[in-house]
Amino acid sequence: MSETRLGAQTIRFGRPPRVLGCAGVVGKKEGEGPLGGSFDVVETDAFCGEKTWEKAESRLLRTALAHAVEKAGRPLAEIDVLFAGDLLDQCIGTSFGLRDTGRPLLGLYAACATMAEGLVLAAAAVSAGYARTAAAMSSSHFCAAERQYRLPLEYGGQRAPTAQWTVTGAGALVLGAGASGPSLTHAAVGRIVDAGVKDPAHMGAAMAPAVHDTLRAFFAESGTAPGDYDLIATGDLGAPGSELLHDLFARDGVTLSGRHVDCGTLIYDVSAQDVHAGGSGAGCGAAVLCGHLMRGLQKGKWRRLLFCGTGALLSPVSSAQGESIPAVCHVVAFLA
Amino acid sequence: MSETRLGAQTIRFGRPPRVLGCAGVVGKKEGEGPLGGSFDVVETDAFCGEKTWEKAESRLLRTALAHAVEKAGRPLAEIDVLFAGDLLDQCIGTSFGLRDTGRPLLGLYAACATMAEGLVLAAAAVSAGYARTAAAMSSSHFCAAERQYRLPLEYGGQRAPTAQWTVTGAGALVLGAGASGPSLTHAAVGRIVDAGVKDPAHMGAAMAPAVHDTLRAFFAESGTAPGDYDLIATGDLGAPGSELLHDLFARDGVTLSGRHVDCGTLIYDVSAQDVHAGGSGAGCGAAVLCGHLMRGLQKGKWRRLLFCGTGALLSPVSSAQGESIPAVCHVVAFLA
Repeated sequence: MSETRLGAQTIRFGRPPRVLGCAGVVGKKEGEGPLGGSFDVVETDAFCGEKTWEKAESRLLRTALAHAVEKAGRPLAEIDVLFAGDLLDQCIGTSFGLRDTGRPLLGLYAACATMAEGLVLAAAAVSAGYARTAAAMSSSHFCAAERQYRLPLEYGGQRAPTAQWTVTGAGALVLGAGASGPSLTHAAVGRIVDAGVKDPAHMGAAMAPAVHDTLRAFFAESGTAPGDYDLIATGDLGAPGSELLHDLFARDGVTLSGRHVDCGTLIYDVSAQDVHAGGSGAGCGAAVLCGHLMRGLQKGKWRRLLFCGTGALLSPVSSAQGESIPAVCHVVAFLA
Repeated sequence: MSETRLGAQTIRFGRPPRVLGCAGVVGKKEGEGPLGGSFDVVETDAFCGEKTWEKAESRLLRTALAHAVEKAGRPLAEIDVLFAGDLLDQCIGTSFGLRDTGRPLLGLYAACATMAEGLVLAAAAVSAGYARTAAAMSSSHFCAAERQYRLPLEYGGQRAPTAQWTVTGAGALVLGAGASGPSLTHAAVGRIVDAGVKDPAHMGAAMAPAVHDTLRAFFAESGTAPGDYDLIATGDLGAPGSELLHDLFARDGVTLSGRHVDCGTLIYDVSAQDVHAGGSGAGCGAAVLCGHLMRGLQKGKWRRLLFCGTGALLSPVSSAQGESIPAVCHVVAFLA
């Protein structure tokens, strides 16, 4: 069966690739959260044995890939292509993290939607026969993100109630032909949506309209509705962003209740761990997908899962220049 | 004919897409260079009518896409997917430049190899049937790059002889099914090569080994040699980087003489325009490909062209932390 365009944004894969292996790797705080037991590795040192936080992020990504490849039961040399990106300026988490892999690499930037974009492209590459196996991955690190996007950690600035906490973590997922395991059946590619939100401490509000835009297109083009999925997981809307998403769908007469979860609110005990609106970061959705969500699919807890990567495409420079926050959301559908 | 993997890095497209339209847009200095007449638009104002250099870069990208789409003879709404990226932190040139297009967007980061990466993915999307049309594009801006990567322009720092001059420019190319025009027949995806070069003012030296690595794989896997191509164009090695590339191939007993050109040395009159080692930047190869090189293919000056995107995957932070410069090169083959 060949690749099918179901509409302007949605694709049905002709030969849906299987999840051959995946791994989520996180830091200490994430390991202490409600999903702690679902990750493959919990690092207890913020530096992961490296000299800087940026190098630590590279280490997280490398570790996630190593574990995903091991669980896929094949050597790294048999992974045909890597799709990866992160939040650091010039994506150095990725470039230095994957420098020694010797594998063909296509670098991505979609902020916290990078894992979903990687899965779209990895699945497309395998289904069309460009690659036999392909890996998608992404990472973030709280300390590296804080000093790049916000303030030096030493400053100890107050955080707004709508602010999110960047997850220290990475996820990697290997797709290929296989006899069993969840398959990636559909993808929807997002377009940029800018609702005019200008507050970088309220990114959930900037991203919710993008999620609404892509999911609405996906449901219409695939002829499905939220009720057809056991779980609809967004990457990092946080609590207020999730509420806005529900409101946007409610205006369409569609309810997400009982189906929607957000990786950013799942990964922490939001009140006990003092993370305000929840987790965020390119590693948030990636680690939760490759840990908690994939385990649930593999164990039969859920059968049909939508994973919605959510990216806020701002930079400190764009915000300083008075710009609003463009956002994007890419969606992939898994079938257990 | 289906997609064919010719080896670990090289793909032959089953339905090679055609170039439906392309456009190169540059700044004043580039317009005054030897290729000035080959660009679609030469902006005479460094701000392109915007308030900041970053917004000017977004404008360049938007203008290039608009002209490419117009030359493709169809409305923007019929371009199924955009592949784009740039050098600014968090790729804001792309996110803000394409914010209002309403088209599905997959963001890329491969430094100055971004245009080539976009062409690999756009061709793959069209050939496999994921999209009927796809556009690849990239941009850079001298002033925005200088203050981000190096020093405030006002500082007026001395430049090393091996330093390159970031091109103010953008290129966009639309691929799709068509009855005539050049086709994109093959692609080779690069892996990261780090030769240990640590001097950010000598990026050609860091990138030449990556070009050698991908081109060597491409020649071996496609069963071709440099002599089979009328032109082999690298994105932005500059003069010393080009010399190193020739040396690396000479060690293999292979000559590139008479075939190889570098977009970074073509775009400026290197001595008269005081650009030292030549041009660089994600807009350099993109604008020269979409201007000079495509015009030559369309006019029958050349028949077989290899375009080699060359990316130095460093950041100011990685260099400050003592790191060397990883590099990557992606290759696409055009047939007139």
